[in-house]
Amino acid sequence: MRVGILGGGQLARMLALAGHPLGLHFRVLDPAEQPAAAAVASHVCGSFDDPVALDRFAAGLDVCTYESENIPLKTTSYIEQRLPLSPPAPALAQTGDRLAERELLRRLGLPIAPFATVDTLEDLPTALRQVGLPAVLKRRRHGYDGRGQRVLGSLCESELASAWREIGSDPAIVEQHVPFTRELALLAVRGRGGETASYPLVETRQRDGILRAAWAPAPALTPELQAQAEAYASRLLEELNYIGVLAVELFHVDGALIVNELAPRVHNSGHWTIEGAETSQFENHLRAIVGLPLGSTAAIGHTALINLLGTPPDPHSLLRVQDSHLHLYGKEPRPGRKVGHLTIRAADPAALAARLAALGAAMPEVKGDLLCEVV
Amino acid sequence: MRVGILGGGQLARMLALAGHPLGLHFRVLDPAEQPAAAAVASHVCGSFDDPVALDRFAAGLDVCTYESENIPLKTTSYIEQRLPLSPPAPALAQTGDRLAERELLRRLGLPIAPFATVDTLEDLPTALRQVGLPAVLKRRRHGYDGRGQRVLGSLCESELASAWREIGSDPAIVEQHVPFTRELALLAVRGRGGETASYPLVETRQRDGILRAAWAPAPALTPELQAQAEAYASRLLEELNYIGVLAVELFHVDGALIVNELAPRVHNSGHWTIEGAETSQFENHLRAIVGLPLGSTAAIGHTALINLLGTPPDPHSLLRVQDSHLHLYGKEPRPGRKVGHLTIRAADPAALAARLAALGAAMPEVKGDLLCEVV
Repeated sequence: MRVGILGGGQLARMLALAGHPLGLHFRVLDPAEQPAAAAVASHVCGSFDDPVALDRFAAGLDVCTYESENIPLKTTSYIEQRLPLSPPAPALAQTGDRLAERELLRRLGLPIAPFATVDTLEDLPTALRQVGLPAVLKRRRHGYDGRGQRVLGSLCESELASAWREIGSDPAIVEQHVPFTRELALLAVRGRGGETASYPLVETRQRDGILRAAWAPAPALTPELQAQAEAYASRLLEELNYIGVLAVELFHVDGALIVNELAPRVHNSGHWTIEGAETSQFENHLRAIVGLPLGSTAAIGHTALINLLGTPPDPHSLLRVQDSHLHLYGKEPRPGRKVGHLTIRAADPAALAARLAALGAAMPEVKGDLLCEVV
Repeated sequence: MRVGILGGGQLARMLALAGHPLGLHFRVLDPAEQPAAAAVASHVCGSFDDPVALDRFAAGLDVCTYESENIPLKTTSYIEQRLPLSPPAPALAQTGDRLAERELLRRLGLPIAPFATVDTLEDLPTALRQVGLPAVLKRRRHGYDGRGQRVLGSLCESELASAWREIGSDPAIVEQHVPFTRELALLAVRGRGGETASYPLVETRQRDGILRAAWAPAPALTPELQAQAEAYASRLLEELNYIGVLAVELFHVDGALIVNELAPRVHNSGHWTIEGAETSQFENHLRAIVGLPLGSTAAIGHTALINLLGTPPDPHSLLRVQDSHLHLYGKEPRPGRKVGHLTIRAADPAALAARLAALGAAMPEVKGDLLCEVV
């Protein structure tokens, strides 16, 4: 089968790496000249709204997926007229717009932080008074890795104006800032026949809005917490008639879960599954969209995930840490850019902590992110 | 780093799949128009003795390896003048010729079956009397998957003549047929700095000279047996100043090990390591040849490997077996051709046996190969 992927970054690259063994063939559409996935997939160079590029991309494909929720709706409509798109377009539409996403979550009765819409700068003070301070201003579309977001602590006019400019003066929402204990994510997957599976919850550590490290299964994970998260995901998967992997980002507050964000795709918080789970999120996403049986989502031991941002450390020092696995994306280093990740696996949390301590010595800049206090 | 691979079959394909995450780039040289590895590596189409193709292949590479021991010595000399070749050429020379291999093993004091050289049909009766019957006639060069081999049970002239024709009337050896209890293989790896590691012994089941199934760690594996095999491998690795993965195929006879064959490369009996070991043989081969630290060779649970020959069964039936992992090579099916493999992993041997029973129902043709009597 021929699988098309809209976007040719590291997610597309890892999808292709997982999919070749299943006998799948890959083509990516990406405007970059040499995107990360081009080393392992054929590449059509072009933008998502170029009909000529879209035609070349779509010709002969059996199924299409995407690695980003920031795909123009015009593009997905075009694709859907020609071949199956998974996850389905409504899932993309409702998660690609934070307002639609919040409305979906509210309609399904999932716990979310109070929010209000902000279409213009003039709406902002009223919206902030409505949700309460501190709050987070979030652009409705095209936000990722903390971009298009700004925490607001006061109603000071100049602060509001600068925040509004910073997020691009685009339609936005404000949301009450949740005083979470920790952040978690659930990676869930639903197959063509409606069967579902979920990975154990992963604890994620963000800094400046970017994922730095993660632990799976989340420390001190209880069956009740897992069941709660799975119940939330399940409602979403059914409602959206979903096919593929869905990432549900959660706040853990006073023992309860609040839904933060959804991503209708494989997700950075699931990269640990390559070594840390029986079947990776990438393979399961593909199994789902091409109609193969889903693979087991069981964890194998305990795994930590560390993102490599900017210029990565010397691989020798990283691979000298016991049971560490390096994943470079073939991207040019730029400050703050995700250029790879590292997974470290161990049979038990104590052994994992020891290996993370060794890694902290090799990567002093992430030492703080690697401290894992059991909640 | 840019890694060249002589040969673009499934071994090159799995090397590339394992190496992209390490940030390596791959180019293969293969005479086929669309070899298995071409989906994940750049491909120079040409034969190993075409200087123009070799020049195009070698340009800009940092290191070269190979996926077959059947590489002309002229080719490796050509490569060695331009860039590092790993494993080193002498290792290839001594394992690419069964006579040289036997002489190496004898010189190092490793246990082998009695053998004699056969340069012409006329040498055959004398050689057979020397080693005793039954015996195996083996072409010195270019034998693999049982090709170029024939078991001989008598001195009958017409049988000898037909066997001699069958192996191509090429220089050969005869070897006493070893009445083994089972066949085992050790995958060992040596890094650029001389550090070594070995995977747990794997039990292999062959039929018509082709690997059908394997279990790792080998059932009833004792530390003494593992140590014995590692001691043998260690002598070879040191003697050959080896870099990369070396496969040592062994006969298990009355509790002792006899060396059967060597392969200076990643090996079919090591495919289980992709899911079944902390670091796969493919990744460790690459780590060794590019000078990165070796990864752990520890097994993760218990794993079975099943080769897919000819037309593979429906992937749905294979992937419905719990914890099964499919590896298709993108090759056109032909009777007897290796087109993929399946690994099935479990936490303990009993669970593995249950999963293999389920697989036997989906693949009746390999049911017999999946019976694993603990020795």
